[in-house]
Amino acid sequence: MKVQDIGEQGLLAIVKRFCPQEVVGDDAAILTPKSDQSLVITTDMLVDEVHFSDRTTTASDVGWRATAANLSDIAAMGAFPVGITVALGLTPETSVEWVEEFYQGISQCLEPFNTPIVGGDICQSRVRCVSITAFGQVNPQFAIRRNTAQAGNAIVVTGVHGDSRAGLEVLLKPEFGQSLSQMQRSSLIEAHQRPLPRLDAIAILQEILPDEIIVAGMDSSDGLADAVVQICQASQVGARIERHQIPLSEALQQLVSPSQALNWALYGGEDFQLVLCLPMPLAEQFVQKLGTGAAVVGITTTNPQILLVDQTQPQTETPLVLNKGFKHF
Amino acid sequence: MKVQDIGEQGLLAIVKRFCPQEVVGDDAAILTPKSDQSLVITTDMLVDEVHFSDRTTTASDVGWRATAANLSDIAAMGAFPVGITVALGLTPETSVEWVEEFYQGISQCLEPFNTPIVGGDICQSRVRCVSITAFGQVNPQFAIRRNTAQAGNAIVVTGVHGDSRAGLEVLLKPEFGQSLSQMQRSSLIEAHQRPLPRLDAIAILQEILPDEIIVAGMDSSDGLADAVVQICQASQVGARIERHQIPLSEALQQLVSPSQALNWALYGGEDFQLVLCLPMPLAEQFVQKLGTGAAVVGITTTNPQILLVDQTQPQTETPLVLNKGFKHF
Repeated sequence: MKVQDIGEQGLLAIVKRFCPQEVVGDDAAILTPKSDQSLVITTDMLVDEVHFSDRTTTASDVGWRATAANLSDIAAMGAFPVGITVALGLTPETSVEWVEEFYQGISQCLEPFNTPIVGGDICQSRVRCVSITAFGQVNPQFAIRRNTAQAGNAIVVTGVHGDSRAGLEVLLKPEFGQSLSQMQRSSLIEAHQRPLPRLDAIAILQEILPDEIIVAGMDSSDGLADAVVQICQASQVGARIERHQIPLSEALQQLVSPSQALNWALYGGEDFQLVLCLPMPLAEQFVQKLGTGAAVVGITTTNPQILLVDQTQPQTETPLVLNKGFKHF
Repeated sequence: MKVQDIGEQGLLAIVKRFCPQEVVGDDAAILTPKSDQSLVITTDMLVDEVHFSDRTTTASDVGWRATAANLSDIAAMGAFPVGITVALGLTPETSVEWVEEFYQGISQCLEPFNTPIVGGDICQSRVRCVSITAFGQVNPQFAIRRNTAQAGNAIVVTGVHGDSRAGLEVLLKPEFGQSLSQMQRSSLIEAHQRPLPRLDAIAILQEILPDEIIVAGMDSSDGLADAVVQICQASQVGARIERHQIPLSEALQQLVSPSQALNWALYGGEDFQLVLCLPMPLAEQFVQKLGTGAAVVGITTTNPQILLVDQTQPQTETPLVLNKGFKHF
């Protein structure tokens, strides 16, 4: 069955199954925010054959990933999500099953965070496209921005990098993953298809964060290097990242050479971890509470250079650069 | 110059000119809502050759209309806008001028309401598409919903209907508008290209609304008849709409026959007026304060039928119906 067979009313009936009863049926949804909290808003658009493809992405993964990317941006602000809207453009030939699985993927990603779909639009398009907007709330004292890092901060990552890029490669070239165990292959593919927004890390951070400390940071959706450079440029500091401190998964290290693994960790993108700058003692406590994969990877510096350094080879300092090629026209 | 020539960084530089400095540069925007107000959220997606076309819609009109449609939904909830996000999918061949004019149209529509663009996304797409999400705030006691109309309420429209549909016709068939003055033609075309969200009507309503009165309503984006039927069905009441009370512009009445004018007023859609149900004395006060084009067009009834009646021909009662054909697959 295709969407042209069930029409807009049929589609809306499907969508409504995934929304709480009380927020649908009006021109707009009404939410009651907690008082004294700031509102955080982010939006993303994904287009068929640019950001996803039937060859590598199921409908449910498109829904999950679009949702996860937005929730990751909410986490990157130190906030927790309160709702999302979903605008969906569909070709008339799209199967009804695709639409149902798409909303299932969204719901699965939202479920652990008790976050509802509070609004949306569904329309005809010559190309499938999705736009999700997420809203979150943050106590203003916990808000995380890019431009508040101070020289001497520890730079923390909440988890391993490079796995999403490796997972894409394994999906595109299955023979490429032959050297891995089934479990390793799955973990890389899941890192690509079902990234987890690190809202858990924000909850842990807020538990241990003293009142007077401001944390700077962003997510690593465009790569670890890009995040470090963006934070440093916005905060007018430099950084030294120690290459051997960047946590890599065993699967990634087994799949490719050390230099390829490092390159994907720095520039692969879509790992959706958080990159945070905070005072060293707090950073160490945070990393210990977060557990596996979290690490202090470097420090911010008054020297404005943003460098990848190697303690075993002090001569080889490489500048980190923005991931300009990641989204392109 | 095409967008492929300036790339994502060039595009972002354009977009930033239209956003307040303090809300860009992070993963998400932070807003501080007024306390004790509910948050209202709405979203719309528009796709090239489905919702707009270079043949009838300039880039700036696409931006204006997409924005106006969202602000109209905010007004329909009794709320005032606090910000919008704009997600834009562009073909590489789109001209940079189109993008600039698109954001100019958005800004022109937002300007009277002091509403900023607080976030967005811009990406490559095989079809131009736009998704706008608008956020508003409303004191919960002033929130307008569809399901709270009571039998005996006056049904009010905030302005004339049918002009948007007539404007489209004049655009598509210029010879059709020969009978009109230049000013009349322009007013119909403007009704289609530059609809005004009726936030002014919400401000007036809240000035005169006593604490204990709840107003029901929605906007007439899918036509006046559709709005009346949606409100009645959600509120489990019927309605009698008096055809001679439906305000029509002189230009519309001069352009087409009385029955065509009535049909466009009821089913043409995209007039973006508000259709509100409230006690008669308050309705009359509201209409008087609103001025030109506003009118009490009927009353809600315990009889569940939703009828168009004609006081000059008591035999001819016609049921009003939903505008199912308006958006289709």
